[in-house]
Amino acid sequence: MSEVIATYLVHDTKDLQKKAESIALGLTVGSWTDLPLLEQEQLKKHKGTVISVEPLEENSGFIKIAYPSANFSADLPAILITTFGKLSLDGKIKLIDLQFSDELKKQFPGPRFGIEGIREKVGVFHRPLVMSIFKGVIGRDLAYLCEQLKQQALGGVDFIKDDEILFENDLAPFEQRIVEGKKVLNDVYEQTGEKTLYAVNVTGKTFELKEKAKRAAELGADVLLFNVFAYGLDVLQALREDDEIALPIMAHPAVSGALISSKFYGIASPLLLGKLLRLAGADFSLFPSPYGSVALERTEALQIAAELTKEESFKKTFPVPSAGIHPGLVPQLIQDFGIDSIINAGGGVHGHPDGAIGGGRAFRSAVDAVLAGVDLKQAAKENEALQKALDLWGMVEVK
Amino acid sequence: MSEVIATYLVHDTKDLQKKAESIALGLTVGSWTDLPLLEQEQLKKHKGTVISVEPLEENSGFIKIAYPSANFSADLPAILITTFGKLSLDGKIKLIDLQFSDELKKQFPGPRFGIEGIREKVGVFHRPLVMSIFKGVIGRDLAYLCEQLKQQALGGVDFIKDDEILFENDLAPFEQRIVEGKKVLNDVYEQTGEKTLYAVNVTGKTFELKEKAKRAAELGADVLLFNVFAYGLDVLQALREDDEIALPIMAHPAVSGALISSKFYGIASPLLLGKLLRLAGADFSLFPSPYGSVALERTEALQIAAELTKEESFKKTFPVPSAGIHPGLVPQLIQDFGIDSIINAGGGVHGHPDGAIGGGRAFRSAVDAVLAGVDLKQAAKENEALQKALDLWGMVEVK
Repeated sequence: MSEVIATYLVHDTKDLQKKAESIALGLTVGSWTDLPLLEQEQLKKHKGTVISVEPLEENSGFIKIAYPSANFSADLPAILITTFGKLSLDGKIKLIDLQFSDELKKQFPGPRFGIEGIREKVGVFHRPLVMSIFKGVIGRDLAYLCEQLKQQALGGVDFIKDDEILFENDLAPFEQRIVEGKKVLNDVYEQTGEKTLYAVNVTGKTFELKEKAKRAAELGADVLLFNVFAYGLDVLQALREDDEIALPIMAHPAVSGALISSKFYGIASPLLLGKLLRLAGADFSLFPSPYGSVALERTEALQIAAELTKEESFKKTFPVPSAGIHPGLVPQLIQDFGIDSIINAGGGVHGHPDGAIGGGRAFRSAVDAVLAGVDLKQAAKENEALQKALDLWGMVEVK
Repeated sequence: MSEVIATYLVHDTKDLQKKAESIALGLTVGSWTDLPLLEQEQLKKHKGTVISVEPLEENSGFIKIAYPSANFSADLPAILITTFGKLSLDGKIKLIDLQFSDELKKQFPGPRFGIEGIREKVGVFHRPLVMSIFKGVIGRDLAYLCEQLKQQALGGVDFIKDDEILFENDLAPFEQRIVEGKKVLNDVYEQTGEKTLYAVNVTGKTFELKEKAKRAAELGADVLLFNVFAYGLDVLQALREDDEIALPIMAHPAVSGALISSKFYGIASPLLLGKLLRLAGADFSLFPSPYGSVALERTEALQIAAELTKEESFKKTFPVPSAGIHPGLVPQLIQDFGIDSIINAGGGVHGHPDGAIGGGRAFRSAVDAVLAGVDLKQAAKENEALQKALDLWGMVEVK
């Protein structure tokens, strides 16, 4: 049967079984035992089912409810409203997971490119990719941005992403960033032979996004950065599905903290930043790394990455654990997130004593060292940029 | 200066002043004191400012930061990303309020009709309006829905709203619900002389909503019900701004519990379900009443209503405190939310011993009694429907 099974964590609930049954009926057919048999027969395929109830300590526990697909249209807003609409307001309850039946999954696109497709675009197949982030660009003009882009690219990073708080502005308009950025990156490519892709922030009003994204595609943009949680997962899906756009999409977690941070309320991060972003079509998912000051718990960050990359009918999404990343963390990053991940840094690139060039080089050298099985400190002896990075930020021993 | 001032509640923060300064710079120009004077001059109009810091007990407190409008485009996604994008992920922090400068407010529409415009549509000016909700409609056909619509309308309610979990479906398609529903309501009007408006649930994929809403307008729909938090505030605004739609919009709080429920994280309900819904253009805002099992704290519910109705450059939005409402609560409802509110019930209408007709009549009688200064118990002596309601659900003494 086509359905979605929702897992909830509930607190302050004495009778879990009763709560589960009231959800299963209340959010589907309303009532059951008092219905005439004939109506029960008619409504059977719409009735929610309690799949399991797993008590934890102190009046809390997990509840799993199956909702038949017959009850909703095959779009994420309808699925969220069905499984966590009114229920999100009903006491201490957190949506932990949504399991989509195979039939339902077919209604969703998954990433257009996925990890393999993105690797083909940069021509790099056997190492984690490296990304850096524009810094301090608010109020700066296009020349400033182009120079920063150049410095970052010269360091050998594979991707450079806009600051997510850079919106449409007169000093460095969206279209010009794409066109001028492309020139800069082509120049660097001719000089170094290394390809760098630029993720441009697609912003503005919802109903203007598709046109902006199409224009970006026409102008030869590499990747779209998208603040999906300020818009909606369904808007991400629409950008993914439009064949006239057909660009990789990098999902930024801005605003998602309002949904994922509480233990008692909201939506679990592996579901929101992992499974649902992949289902809706993100090629990259940025999420807080477990290392920095803006951090997720380690198990949570690993669960997000697992949802993005496990075997599935969809292509895989690149995990991009972000914040607090410096070259001395590369062994730990590769240990935790594997080869198929992106190492992403802002301060860890720009704060390098030799600037963004040195930062990028230090990261690339650290990656090469780890893959060659060489200790970072050893590698740093023959690599000045890496040595300076380790001197500044230290080296994190792999646990 | 055009700006938005954000108020945050932070916990687990020893040095509030330092935290505030790091937000004000980090989310705007990045750094300041190490910038050359010439650059400071250029970036001045983009720099965030700490407006105030108000410590509370135990390393917590309120922080106010001003963000210049020069930093963002005039749309809600950009404002949310600027004020609570990355920051939403930065520890125990909740967005409490956003104050828009007058210049910035002009970029937003507010409700198209507002309380006055809605009153003109129903032709009722001097009492709270009464609404009832379809119940148990999943898996039911159009004939069933039309009969339920008729019963509710015959009770004299002013509005009837779709169940928010009713999506596009073959048994009772959106367009047919509008057309057939209109016939039913016209018949009742001819019979009773009382007008009832039907709020139809506009659902589906984001980029199909405008076309669906336009079609609804062509078919003569009265009101659109919209699950805004499964889509995005900006989508609500787009539906509001489209002159080819031009229908009242009823915002449903489904999914908003994931954002508003934690004391430590997310977005405060008076901001989300009050100020921002009004700014973006909702004519009605449903929110949990302080009375039922799915409840908000009283002060919080009153704050939402205050945001929806206080004097402002925008039209007013109807507060619709919902859940747990029965006729015996009407004196308390009018005491708490005033004449300019909507009394909305599901079970309190359908669960009446005489069915939805009796439920509606009991509510209307209760409203008339309160406005006439007559005690409900007294009024019930001459009103059978009200008496039965009070017998079943009791009478709540006004505090």
